[in-house]
Amino acid sequence: MDLYLLVIYDISDNALRSKMASFLKSQGLERIQRSAFIGPATPSLARNVEAGVTRLVRGREGEINVQLYLLTPACFNSRTIIGELKYNEDESGLVT
Amino acid sequence: MDLYLLVIYDISDNALRSKMASFLKSQGLERIQRSAFIGPATPSLARNVEAGVTRLVRGREGEINVQLYLLTPACFNSRTIIGELKYNEDESGLVT
Repeated sequence: MDLYLLVIYDISDNALRSKMASFLKSQGLERIQRSAFIGPATPSLARNVEAGVTRLVRGREGEINVQLYLLTPACFNSRTIIGELKYNEDESGLVT
Repeated sequence: MDLYLLVIYDISDNALRSKMASFLKSQGLERIQRSAFIGPATPSLARNVEAGVTRLVRGREGEINVQLYLLTPACFNSRTIIGELKYNEDESGLVT
């Protein structure tokens, strides 16, 4: 079964948020919003991402909230997108 | 089957973002991040939320990105939360 990993995060510190984006990109995930990434994932990749995120935010848990969802094809395919704002791969991230 | 609706959004305009939060709250969803809500949902509620979001952002589609995911229990229960930042119900939203 093809799974997808969705990661959404709430990190107000610019430097830490930027590190989070770089890390998630390094794991092969694609930026879909300023603070959301998604990509095909095995359970093993999902565990690696979880471990990496946990390391990245260590000591700053009170300031942040990161949520990981492992989506089945049914859940992934239920996705509805409204609006046309898109992100490219760089850190500032914003293109249209 | 108990479904959950996850809504994540990327809206830079403060007024529109605030309207989005109020609308999602009015639909019974719970704020889990600055720009993310979740809650139990029937397919009918999901359609209503999609229609409401579509109305709310009309004419400003180029500035925003909203994604809706209808999660099965398996997907919802796969959720992992890292960090302790939480939101309350008011518009500014931030509590710990």
